[in-house]
Amino acid sequence: MRRRNRNPRCAVNVAVEVLGDSWSLLIVRDIVFYGKHTFREFLDGAERITTSVLSDRLAALVKEGILDKRRSPTDQRREEYSLTEKGLRLIPVLVELANWGTDHGPEVIPHPKWVEKATTDPAGLHALVRETAAADRAAFRGPDSVLDRLNTGASRTAHRNE
Amino acid sequence: MRRRNRNPRCAVNVAVEVLGDSWSLLIVRDIVFYGKHTFREFLDGAERITTSVLSDRLAALVKEGILDKRRSPTDQRREEYSLTEKGLRLIPVLVELANWGTDHGPEVIPHPKWVEKATTDPAGLHALVRETAAADRAAFRGPDSVLDRLNTGASRTAHRNE
Repeated sequence: MRRRNRNPRCAVNVAVEVLGDSWSLLIVRDIVFYGKHTFREFLDGAERITTSVLSDRLAALVKEGILDKRRSPTDQRREEYSLTEKGLRLIPVLVELANWGTDHGPEVIPHPKWVEKATTDPAGLHALVRETAAADRAAFRGPDSVLDRLNTGASRTAHRNE
Repeated sequence: MRRRNRNPRCAVNVAVEVLGDSWSLLIVRDIVFYGKHTFREFLDGAERITTSVLSDRLAALVKEGILDKRRSPTDQRREEYSLTEKGLRLIPVLVELANWGTDHGPEVIPHPKWVEKATTDPAGLHALVRETAAADRAAFRGPDSVLDRLNTGASRTAHRNE
């Protein structure tokens, strides 16, 4: 898709520009819902991404600060990708896309992780973010983290429903 | 983007497949946040979509049941597009993309409508869905509507926060 970027002040446009195309969201999904971390694992997905598209998208996601790339601590020959805090903040987008996709037809099977945890419920999102961060050993940066942001949302919602 | 559709059972993949590419989300955004309804209005966006891409995406969105197309009640020569209930259900996706995009840089200005109403707070989402539906004169289909779904989310959240 060609770069547009003619409307840098619209938050939705900025998001879709940064994400590039849907492959980026599918790579983030692979990390969150399938626990994938390596080039080989991403390549193995049911959607059959090509090596060149995958290389391109991984480089773009690292450049945008959505993914971290590093040597595996257990196997120095292997490179692993994990979500940064900015990447973890995409989880609510994934969950809403999944909610919408699940409504699309009876043949769509939601991933077990979000049957159990994810919905628009911030508590479910917390668990998913925490679990992903722990699994990826992503560094959490204290009180201004994505969890804090989600907590604020939860308090506000609870307040309105009192 | 080429059609993949090799993983019809994954809800995230189904969602991104149906949406096609980010132009579709930007058209939905134009309806929700800018109150646009006509081909000419969509064409006028800051992102400079071309007439051929716009024709293609509008036809796809109608085919997928996300948009309705009809003659304007006030001007029979004019065709107008509005969101179906399935289209209205995309609003939470837009809101989460906007939340994420707003974090992306200080130059990003969230649209006034979601400064005021939208967040992860279901009450804010309700207002936005209601207002969009009213503006578009979209037919609401009673108790199994998108509002009901959002209400369920709100109750569950409130319960968890007690």
